[in-house]
Amino acid sequence: MPYSDETASYKFNHTMLRIKDPKISIPFYTEVIGMDLIEKLDFNTFTLYFLAFDRSGGKATKEEKTADRLNREGILELTHNHGTEHDKEVSYHSGNSEPRGFGHIAITVANVEEACARFERLNVPFKKRLTDGQMRNIAFILDPDGYWIELLQDTTATK
Amino acid sequence: MPYSDETASYKFNHTMLRIKDPKISIPFYTEVIGMDLIEKLDFNTFTLYFLAFDRSGGKATKEEKTADRLNREGILELTHNHGTEHDKEVSYHSGNSEPRGFGHIAITVANVEEACARFERLNVPFKKRLTDGQMRNIAFILDPDGYWIELLQDTTATK
Repeated sequence: MPYSDETASYKFNHTMLRIKDPKISIPFYTEVIGMDLIEKLDFNTFTLYFLAFDRSGGKATKEEKTADRLNREGILELTHNHGTEHDKEVSYHSGNSEPRGFGHIAITVANVEEACARFERLNVPFKKRLTDGQMRNIAFILDPDGYWIELLQDTTATK
Repeated sequence: MPYSDETASYKFNHTMLRIKDPKISIPFYTEVIGMDLIEKLDFNTFTLYFLAFDRSGGKATKEEKTADRLNREGILELTHNHGTEHDKEVSYHSGNSEPRGFGHIAITVANVEEACARFERLNVPFKKRLTDGQMRNIAFILDPDGYWIELLQDTTATK
């Protein structure tokens, strides 16, 4: 498509997934996956958590990261409907069994073998290890709700 | 979370959605949404389409955009399982009725009223217009498979 002024400002800002329990999912996405919680918005019946990878090499302040929320790509929005964490009837659907739709989110890393070894060490469940199946360059881990997270190597990374 | 060397290279590279018919979805995401098709990978039984917004102000070549595929955020991967476009039994699930999970992808724009007027002009179906409901600063349109696309204004945009 020819470059168009009409859509020149558009950015693929975020992807939204529902989560059952933020006390499990937020530590997973921050401490295990390595994203920053850049904003938390509380409403009457639900709370939104916005997470993103740091792009500043650790230099940006929390305020700068929050200010950047609408002006960047690669944000993950997690929606917590209050009470689901105590409701045995609630579990979310990964999209990878019927009815299918959404498939996964994907994280590129400088070294996929090191990343997988780290996730093994942190006891993260795998859907597909690098050694499973025919595609030996990608792996899938599972987040606390069972959503699939693909891991693949950024072959252009210098680090 | 303190900045960690272990996850410093990680990027939220892409989100994957299944599509029924690329002859409908690819023109939608390129001509209507304004993304570039930066790579197409054909396999025996499926094809992957990778789309992303231009970040170069129209300066990058197709080759440069393709080379950047693993080294950036904000990519949309659309998976076409061959034959679904002719199979009346196949329709994909948006994640917003039971069983719920995935919610939406979101696009930030410099001017959300102009963007909505443009999508109206292009006959894109709306799930929620700016004037519907209580949140008057966001809208939702529907992609050809019924996935929700949120539109919200980048209040920091200069344009």
